[in-house]
Amino acid sequence: MKQKIRLIAPLVTEGLRLDEYVADLSDAQVEVSAVILETGPASVEGSFDEALAVPGVVNRVIEAEQEGCAAAIIDCMSDPGLEAAREVAAMPVFGPAQTSMHVASTIGHRFSMLAVLGRQISLFDGLAAKYGVAGNMASVRSVEIPVLELEKNPGLLCEGLVRQAILAVEEDGADTVILGCTGLAGLAGQVRDGLAAEKVMDVLVVDPIESTVAFAAGILKCGLGHSKRVFSQPRQKRIVGYDVPGRSAE
Amino acid sequence: MKQKIRLIAPLVTEGLRLDEYVADLSDAQVEVSAVILETGPASVEGSFDEALAVPGVVNRVIEAEQEGCAAAIIDCMSDPGLEAAREVAAMPVFGPAQTSMHVASTIGHRFSMLAVLGRQISLFDGLAAKYGVAGNMASVRSVEIPVLELEKNPGLLCEGLVRQAILAVEEDGADTVILGCTGLAGLAGQVRDGLAAEKVMDVLVVDPIESTVAFAAGILKCGLGHSKRVFSQPRQKRIVGYDVPGRSAE
Amino acid sequence: MKQKIRLIAPLVTEGLRLDEYVADLSDAQVEVSAVILETGPASVEGSFDEALAVPGVVNRVIEAEQEGCAAAIIDCMSDPGLEAAREVAAMPVFGPAQTSMHVASTIGHRFSMLAVLGRQISLFDGLAAKYGVAGNMASVRSVEIPVLELEKNPGLLCEGLVRQAILAVEEDGADTVILGCTGLAGLAGQVRDGLAAEKVMDVLVVDPIESTVAFAAGILKCGLGHSKRVFSQPRQKRIVGYDVPGRSAE
Amino acid sequence: MKQKIRLIAPLVTEGLRLDEYVADLSDAQVEVSAVILETGPASVEGSFDEALAVPGVVNRVIEAEQEGCAAAIIDCMSDPGLEAAREVAAMPVFGPAQTSMHVASTIGHRFSMLAVLGRQISLFDGLAAKYGVAGNMASVRSVEIPVLELEKNPGLLCEGLVRQAILAVEEDGADTVILGCTGLAGLAGQVRDGLAAEKVMDVLVVDPIESTVAFAAGILKCGLGHSKRVFSQPRQKRIVGYDVPGRSAE
Amino acid sequence: MKQKIRLIAPLVTEGLRLDEYVADLSDAQVEVSAVILETGPASVEGSFDEALAVPGVVNRVIEAEQEGCAAAIIDCMSDPGLEAAREVAAMPVFGPAQTSMHVASTIGHRFSMLAVLGRQISLFDGLAAKYGVAGNMASVRSVEIPVLELEKNPGLLCEGLVRQAILAVEEDGADTVILGCTGLAGLAGQVRDGLAAEKVMDVLVVDPIESTVAFAAGILKCGLGHSKRVFSQPRQKRIVGYDVPGRSAE
Amino acid sequence: MKQKIRLIAPLVTEGLRLDEYVADLSDAQVEVSAVILETGPASVEGSFDEALAVPGVVNRVIEAEQEGCAAAIIDCMSDPGLEAAREVAAMPVFGPAQTSMHVASTIGHRFSMLAVLGRQISLFDGLAAKYGVAGNMASVRSVEIPVLELEKNPGLLCEGLVRQAILAVEEDGADTVILGCTGLAGLAGQVRDGLAAEKVMDVLVVDPIESTVAFAAGILKCGLGHSKRVFSQPRQKRIVGYDVPGRSAE
Repeated sequence: MKQKIRLIAPLVTEGLRLDEYVADLSDAQVEVSAVILETGPASVEGSFDEALAVPGVVNRVIEAEQEGCAAAIIDCMSDPGLEAAREVAAMPVFGPAQTSMHVASTIGHRFSMLAVLGRQISLFDGLAAKYGVAGNMASVRSVEIPVLELEKNPGLLCEGLVRQAILAVEEDGADTVILGCTGLAGLAGQVRDGLAAEKVMDVLVVDPIESTVAFAAGILKCGLGHSKRVFSQPRQKRIVGYDVPGRSAE
Repeated sequence: MKQKIRLIAPLVTEGLRLDEYVADLSDAQVEVSAVILETGPASVEGSFDEALAVPGVVNRVIEAEQEGCAAAIIDCMSDPGLEAAREVAAMPVFGPAQTSMHVASTIGHRFSMLAVLGRQISLFDGLAAKYGVAGNMASVRSVEIPVLELEKNPGLLCEGLVRQAILAVEEDGADTVILGCTGLAGLAGQVRDGLAAEKVMDVLVVDPIESTVAFAAGILKCGLGHSKRVFSQPRQKRIVGYDVPGRSAE
Repeated sequence: MKQKIRLIAPLVTEGLRLDEYVADLSDAQVEVSAVILETGPASVEGSFDEALAVPGVVNRVIEAEQEGCAAAIIDCMSDPGLEAAREVAAMPVFGPAQTSMHVASTIGHRFSMLAVLGRQISLFDGLAAKYGVAGNMASVRSVEIPVLELEKNPGLLCEGLVRQAILAVEEDGADTVILGCTGLAGLAGQVRDGLAAEKVMDVLVVDPIESTVAFAAGILKCGLGHSKRVFSQPRQKRIVGYDVPGRSAE
Repeated sequence: MKQKIRLIAPLVTEGLRLDEYVADLSDAQVEVSAVILETGPASVEGSFDEALAVPGVVNRVIEAEQEGCAAAIIDCMSDPGLEAAREVAAMPVFGPAQTSMHVASTIGHRFSMLAVLGRQISLFDGLAAKYGVAGNMASVRSVEIPVLELEKNPGLLCEGLVRQAILAVEEDGADTVILGCTGLAGLAGQVRDGLAAEKVMDVLVVDPIESTVAFAAGILKCGLGHSKRVFSQPRQKRIVGYDVPGRSAE
Repeated sequence: MKQKIRLIAPLVTEGLRLDEYVADLSDAQVEVSAVILETGPASVEGSFDEALAVPGVVNRVIEAEQEGCAAAIIDCMSDPGLEAAREVAAMPVFGPAQTSMHVASTIGHRFSMLAVLGRQISLFDGLAAKYGVAGNMASVRSVEIPVLELEKNPGLLCEGLVRQAILAVEEDGADTVILGCTGLAGLAGQVRDGLAAEKVMDVLVVDPIESTVAFAAGILKCGLGHSKRVFSQPRQKRIVGYDVPGRSAE
Repeated sequence: MKQKIRLIAPLVTEGLRLDEYVADLSDAQVEVSAVILETGPASVEGSFDEALAVPGVVNRVIEAEQEGCAAAIIDCMSDPGLEAAREVAAMPVFGPAQTSMHVASTIGHRFSMLAVLGRQISLFDGLAAKYGVAGNMASVRSVEIPVLELEKNPGLLCEGLVRQAILAVEEDGADTVILGCTGLAGLAGQVRDGLAAEKVMDVLVVDPIESTVAFAAGILKCGLGHSKRVFSQPRQKRIVGYDVPGRSAE
């Protein structure tokens, strides 16, 4: 029987994740579904947006576990709410930034992040430091396009990603690039083609959601999960203003 | 004229911060006030608690700026919402963990965190890595007392802090200890006395709120603040379920 | 159709890897097979043993690719010949030390290696540094039992692993342990039980081969592989004393 | 009553520090005074100069403490004699390099040093490593103007600082710059204006002396000081050729 | 009486090392001799080449010790077989990459490697990490000339080395460069001259074999060697396909 | 003809370095001589002592160069004045801490410093960070005996060194120990014997002066020296109170 993996997009904007994309992520082993939030921001481009997204993410994780999911993935490259979700869930929860940084470190030598906005440089520096792979990150480079405009001009977006990928390889010493926004999902092939067209060969392009789904399936197969020793269940305590399943609220 | 600094406790429990304590933090230069949250958890002991606290922290920071405060300090050692608050505020915002780690690094050689719970070890490891001072942190040691029970048995608490401080010094090579929970505010003197009684001399004991207030006053005097280049104002976008001053919500 | 993954044990001793174990690693997605070497040492316990194993590993990798395998895994925790094999193969090649260190870093906070011999401490230190995860490794601890004696006294072995795991958790701050020899494959469950019997809860025990097979399956599903930019094909040149498929030798 | 802070310029050249500047540093809390040395070099531009400055610095620190000062600051960005002065003094002693590096790390993400001479690159690299903030330093860039010529052509100096600050931001990823010589004191505003004129916005410019005075005032307010456990009083011993107050000399 | 040091070139190509060069390395204290391998690759340019070279290196080290040598040096900048050789030998064994990186770190501030091929970048990154000097390495730069063509156009080679050395100094902040291939032995003087002709002064150019021979002589004089605690003698065990002196083989 | 190497003890106390010891350091290649200072402290146990020693060290280095020495070594494990001396001298100058840390890193895996006083822990931490080998240093351990009392009870001293060496090996993972005070010169053999008597085998014991003399001889043989690009000659400028050869003073 297939195991269910739930993608949780930390935003309230429908349609960013196409049904066919989710279907593509499913296979003989796992069945992937996706939800957005009931409360939160239209998109996540910084820490303020994250702040408004995280309570909704936590609730969606609890809900997914109650609905029989075997794992959850937070569908955003700042991994908003990863630690909080890991505390409340018994099933494993993954963040695509953490997972794809470690995947890239395993298959390549130095990776670069292709961010959508320059303001994410300090974000990815901080995440790489926290996740212990700062020494493997060659650089963070940005195409400077807001998340909600990513779909407006696909040609320009892809061109920008290819240009930044080439700079990452030639200036910063990267051999692997990670798409730095889950809104870029599905573009890895086009970036690879664009690089090949520019004779920049053999650069690995990592799609963070695709690789996180595959990684999660592997962890499930091994009977592992995130450490409940580190991310132990929160104590029951008074909560005001949030309705969290299984927790008393006012 | 005095500059106003607002302490924001990321919780909904009254009375943890006494008025006299706030008064003690005020002086000729700064006037300190303190608020708790309208929505959030009873105490912050992990990432789930933080998740529920951060939206309220952000609102309190916006409110403080509107009320003419010159700076805000998040009154909790996990610095919940620091980056989000820095994005929305033009005035400087400080986190006591970040500030006290850098203060301790300036006056001592190796510092240890005296945490209240063992689950904070990974928290402080992650913060030290993100803030760039991991090499200066000797250890994180815990007294294993929940935040809301800190006031129940003051003698036991102080004894535990002294014992862990001695282990930090003798086993881990620390010369400086930081009280790892703002609920421990005001205990630095007792810990110093306890250490002296045990003949462990010349250990610096840093009260994170006291030192962050003093640090903030210094930054204000210099006309500096946190980097708005890194923490730039969030774009206006659709928000559902949160009422954030100055932002459209549904 | 299932993809074939070849395990290559870098030694000439039959029977260490049971057929049923390999069968257990296979599933709907991948079919795992295993080979030993024609030339090499009886076991790999240090760099001299590795030296004699690596040429055989490289040949087995070339052979696996010619036989239609989709990926190869070097079945030894010193990852002997990983870089050499990655150069000669177009298909992805994985080392269980590199992979399991990154897997452990993704699911836990700090991992320890449970080595069989103390002489592997410098080995694992060096690998963690080269792979960029030294900051996530809490310690290397050893049971001091030679590889070829691992099967002699299973009770003693398991007891030793549990004891070292407890020390890793309690003394060194690990929350995750990696079995530090692929000869320990299959023991993760017993170590978990042993830890539970000692009331040391929620410690993740990573079986390196199981997790590397699962990781490899994920990489295959994503259409990724190791970086051929870093590990580019060796130039053709004169070789004396080795018969390498596809390469002229004397 | 105001607390007295003594600035000690480690050189024998009068007039580099104007009286009005010192007056500006004083406020309701602290009264700042400044001295130069009786013996030492004309300026400090390297380790030889430092060597000749440090004995004089130590004596000035002892003198300041005897005169009732509450703290001393070594007025030079190589922090010459910081450790020695901390050993002999009971009152806190600060170095502007150490303090401003930690201040910059608290308010920004990555800082660059704007040095006056390229020979200071290895100096600042070494200090950042020793102080534990190497990971937060984006770069060291130099205007190549000797210390004693800094006042000769103020326009050229400011232009050079702005140009190097822009390179630090745009090439090296800095968001904060520290004036890398205390002889640049008072220029922070002009550098900010120069950056704004070039449309490089929101860069923090840290004046090391101004920020160190403010930091020192904060430490005094908290009743803290540098660690006497690390910087313990030197033993009494025979000294030849130096007349150090309170120490026997020949 | 002179002590004998054996250079072991890990390749089967004669004539790369001239007799006069070896003679130049000898002096009143040490007598240097050189051998190539009986089995192995024509040159070492990557990990596959290394794989085929290492068994031969180990045998040559055992042979050298039996012939009364006091130390051995592996004549290749990837240090192939260093750890294996250290395990089997009681006499000290040195690798020129490890030794010259530490020599450069002692006399300069930041060193760069002048590699012959770009594929060595990840090699030197990995070695610097393993040897603990990654923070001292400014960059790896390559002239892109295969090892066996190094002697074809000496002028072009030297020009390329000088050009890369200048970039290392001016772009990457190096003050010291290490010739990154022992096939470049003897060119340090020409590189120095070339740099001087371009007015790039005072750059240290380290010849790795010359400096490793001198370092080895010093270690011998002190009665030291490599750590036999770390590199302990391999256990006797079954070996197939290799004839190693003192070890049973099939 | 032999090259002359001058040892400069940064203190005014005669007789600590015996003539026979200096003679032992000389050989066919180098002739070692030793001087103490005319002005300075009786011993160097901290930064204050260093402060008073450094001007004398610089003068002794200039004098040594004028007397035809080929190199100088500062005979103290805090390397007092190393950078200053390197600026004023054209001949190479070495510090035994820097040199022996790199020597130990080349021959072993992890080294520990055997300090005479606990106050040197922060000193050696800082030096290891500055020299870029912090990752190779297992620990600093101290026997707690003042420098001038080292000769009072040789048995007790040696016993203390052996005890701390065993703790460094067994608790901290060191395989190599460095005598952390040049006043311990000549004791390496006794420490080795003491370790062997306790069955702690194969620990490398590095005598810093002996190894630095040998290292210096090697650098001289290679025609290398310290980087004059980093340690460039100080500009001529006004000096008050010091009489430095070749420099105008008042």
